[in-house]
Amino acid sequence: MGLPEKVPPRPGYEVTIHKIYERALLLFPEIEIVSRTKKGIVKSNYRMEAERMQALANALEALGVGKLDRVATLDWNTHWHYEAYYAVPMMGAVLHPVNIRLAPAEIVYVMSQAEDKVVITNSDFLPLVQAVAPKVKTLEHIIVVDTDSVPDKVAGIPVHHYEDLLKQYWGKYDWPLVDEDQPAAMGYTSGTTGLPKGTYHSHKMITLHALSGALHLNTFSKHVSLKTNDTILQLVPMFHVYSWGLPYIAALIGLRQIYPGKLDPGVIIDLVKKENVKFMAGVPTILYMILSHPKAAETDFKGVTYVNGGSALPRGLAELAAKKGMTVFVGYGMTETAPILTLAAPPAHLPVTEENYFDYALRTGWPIPLVDLRVVDPEGNPVPKDGKTMGEIVVRAPWVTPEYYMNPEKTEAAWRDGWFHTGDIAVWYEDGSIVIVDRDKDVIKSGGEWISSVRLEDAISRHPGVAQVAVIAAYHPKWQERPVAIVVPKPGWEDKITTEEIRRFLMENYVEKGVIPKWWLPDKVVLVESLPTTSVGKINKRALRDKFSKILVEEEQ
Amino acid sequence: MGLPEKVPPRPGYEVTIHKIYERALLLFPEIEIVSRTKKGIVKSNYRMEAERMQALANALEALGVGKLDRVATLDWNTHWHYEAYYAVPMMGAVLHPVNIRLAPAEIVYVMSQAEDKVVITNSDFLPLVQAVAPKVKTLEHIIVVDTDSVPDKVAGIPVHHYEDLLKQYWGKYDWPLVDEDQPAAMGYTSGTTGLPKGTYHSHKMITLHALSGALHLNTFSKHVSLKTNDTILQLVPMFHVYSWGLPYIAALIGLRQIYPGKLDPGVIIDLVKKENVKFMAGVPTILYMILSHPKAAETDFKGVTYVNGGSALPRGLAELAAKKGMTVFVGYGMTETAPILTLAAPPAHLPVTEENYFDYALRTGWPIPLVDLRVVDPEGNPVPKDGKTMGEIVVRAPWVTPEYYMNPEKTEAAWRDGWFHTGDIAVWYEDGSIVIVDRDKDVIKSGGEWISSVRLEDAISRHPGVAQVAVIAAYHPKWQERPVAIVVPKPGWEDKITTEEIRRFLMENYVEKGVIPKWWLPDKVVLVESLPTTSVGKINKRALRDKFSKILVEEEQ
Repeated sequence: MGLPEKVPPRPGYEVTIHKIYERALLLFPEIEIVSRTKKGIVKSNYRMEAERMQALANALEALGVGKLDRVATLDWNTHWHYEAYYAVPMMGAVLHPVNIRLAPAEIVYVMSQAEDKVVITNSDFLPLVQAVAPKVKTLEHIIVVDTDSVPDKVAGIPVHHYEDLLKQYWGKYDWPLVDEDQPAAMGYTSGTTGLPKGTYHSHKMITLHALSGALHLNTFSKHVSLKTNDTILQLVPMFHVYSWGLPYIAALIGLRQIYPGKLDPGVIIDLVKKENVKFMAGVPTILYMILSHPKAAETDFKGVTYVNGGSALPRGLAELAAKKGMTVFVGYGMTETAPILTLAAPPAHLPVTEENYFDYALRTGWPIPLVDLRVVDPEGNPVPKDGKTMGEIVVRAPWVTPEYYMNPEKTEAAWRDGWFHTGDIAVWYEDGSIVIVDRDKDVIKSGGEWISSVRLEDAISRHPGVAQVAVIAAYHPKWQERPVAIVVPKPGWEDKITTEEIRRFLMENYVEKGVIPKWWLPDKVVLVESLPTTSVGKINKRALRDKFSKILVEEEQ
Repeated sequence: MGLPEKVPPRPGYEVTIHKIYERALLLFPEIEIVSRTKKGIVKSNYRMEAERMQALANALEALGVGKLDRVATLDWNTHWHYEAYYAVPMMGAVLHPVNIRLAPAEIVYVMSQAEDKVVITNSDFLPLVQAVAPKVKTLEHIIVVDTDSVPDKVAGIPVHHYEDLLKQYWGKYDWPLVDEDQPAAMGYTSGTTGLPKGTYHSHKMITLHALSGALHLNTFSKHVSLKTNDTILQLVPMFHVYSWGLPYIAALIGLRQIYPGKLDPGVIIDLVKKENVKFMAGVPTILYMILSHPKAAETDFKGVTYVNGGSALPRGLAELAAKKGMTVFVGYGMTETAPILTLAAPPAHLPVTEENYFDYALRTGWPIPLVDLRVVDPEGNPVPKDGKTMGEIVVRAPWVTPEYYMNPEKTEAAWRDGWFHTGDIAVWYEDGSIVIVDRDKDVIKSGGEWISSVRLEDAISRHPGVAQVAVIAAYHPKWQERPVAIVVPKPGWEDKITTEEIRRFLMENYVEKGVIPKWWLPDKVVLVESLPTTSVGKINKRALRDKFSKILVEEEQ
């Protein structure tokens, strides 16, 4: 008797993905879920999806999937993928969406470390599965979602057809009561430096992340208001950080969902028009692909909100999107944080106007509920909120992975003094927002002072002849490092973009206005036809550094 | 190594009230918090309140308040009360808002059972404190918030002045890391049947409740959209179920908050006009007091949303509110559930029009996120979603109190088969909404069939001459129970409201239209000048039953 130190949990009263599922089934049974497959559009709804999820759980159980067993997925954004997102964790197993853009050797590495027992794959990735399966010793079953004929076995492992399994195991499944702290899903970082690192997140983490993200989206800014039955186009690859949690956020709000299948900018534009899409999220590369597609010319994107994540959104691209009618703003997060930490939807309480909109919307953002975030100096002390002093972003939030899986060394390096260290360098503003100025390793250290490659990229992207730009640190005998800009020119500008022209543009528009210091001007501009990207569509700065970091010294020789 | 069965918690990463506080301080420092005191309006903001909360924590610590110690409050809706709502749980102690409307003996009972160590009181309740303090053996300190001169001691217990303490202990307070499952607050049921029952809720419960309630409010209906810096008038008494969680919801969204002090309908109307209030919540009695106040005649309530809870909202009152420009809908919950379970803001995905608005808004509502709710028969099986079959509401939600404090018998009676039994009788609709037709003990059992007193009250309330109505079960020799309506007539209608007139009105408007069966017609209508209310402003049906339950038999004699 007496007040306990800890409230004892009552099974079933806890925060699990089941709660999102049960409520969606009760309140939104007829709201549509639309999926684009090779055979055309599949129309479904929350009720039908719930039935399919139950059949999937029956089937996986029959294949021997039990508590904490890992089920991998290799698929585009489809209703099949959506079904796995719910059924696997709700039956007490662990979802492991595998990044299809990793190298085969990396896929073998992550699937082996995760000890995946079953893989659910799109037929597009069957060749990949055939290549990796023999090396993933734990793999017991392969399920192919979108084809009528599948091989009997791959490397001795039985192969099943998804729809056949669903027919065979159709019927009610009694979801077990799962502890809210039980792992629900695993994700690997994209490994821009070294091998991918494993993270995992519990039911509680994933559910709270969805709740908080959805709340912030809808109350912090006058520029976004999603209501039940509004349409989301699920654009963020589902093999990438749980599609930023949007498949859970969507069901929580009761959004109508469009799964566009294999990514195709022309198809996306068609779907936006036809399906009355109100919300999308993605990396800048995708936004650029959409806006530069021929069909975009005759398309009005009014009423569409696009949240940009993954990399900084160049101002030039943001302004192009705005000109096409989109509401665009930035979001920030990482695999470790499931992922959302901040959103830059311009706040309702600040003096946002049409003119200064992007002064807010292009910040890295304001923390969403339950995220406790600081920008700190190397000693861990918060830096002044002056918009100038750089520091590292550290966070505490209920959805930060507890560790790097099987990697105590990296775990110890990231969790220090009670905070998770993101490795992102930012400045902090009086209004509580942050702006990332660089990744720890992307910062340019010139003569002992820091230069932000992100800010330089942002400025250069506003030159009318620049399509894409990346600024990297090149070795310099005197200053140690100096900025070099790698630029993809717009068609017709190939001859006009030069080091002198870019320096002139920056002088006139930034240096003379006091926005950036003169010593930040890049030493050199290099023209290329395209920029290399990583497996998640970010610009691959490591590859650029490998290629161009000696360019200033080579020229002097 | 390997995937753990449970994600190990990292202290500071958990879901505690600190997260609401920290984010409000970072993002909303200058947003106003306005409090009405005896000496006039006090203007403050989130930053200043955070400083005052730290000083309060310093002071309480100096007075010996430690982990899990209970701090009681006896106050109106003031900024002082708001400060205790945060400072007490965030320092690791437990907030216990005491219902000032309980009888003194009941207050002695709840404060003794809770073992309150300190009480923070408004000077209005100093006489009450003087009466109960000698009997509450655990009480060590009394703090008075709103007066300059306080007695040295009451019953040998030292008395302090709140503002003096804050001055004396002004300065930074380092909030400890508190486990999310640690109890944060206690509340007692209003005890309409028997002694008040104790409930308690952890940091996680209170924070999740706020998150979920705020999300549902802002995404489920086109009729409500609260944004950061919108104004809430905190009308729900803070001594009643944590003011329905609204002081936490407000800080989560960054709402501008008005604390109106001692309840006065005229003052409320003045504040609504002057402060651009967008949101209020309360019991129907308060809504009635506001709308029937002389000042209401010349007031436009357009843009104000009022969420009705505590008792059913009679359609007549709802329509009056709508006529005055308010957006009104129903919410439902109880002390045990911290309290919100459902809200009836008309859903964005259903065909809501101006004409049928109240067909949705007067339901008991749709479950908010994370609430798993069923309407079940006595065997625990869900009843059909046909809007007709009655059953009991049972719930599982992350914010249901784990038990009745020190009351294993009542605990066992309420938690059965993994569900909390609310004792409320409802019907269930295909769209996932529920409508309460009665409290378990208010249902009228006539000849073995159930009659819903709530539905009869709703119908009778629409008679133009009826100001207020309660329908109770009266003993009947043949049918066991028959309905009797206790009516407060509107001025000028005293002679016209009769049993015949009410039966005629119901026949014409409900029975002949097939809305209610003829055998539901009340056997008798009794006129009274006013209806007795309970300590939380609900109509006291127990008192009415005590007085009128024999009326049909007495008349026959």
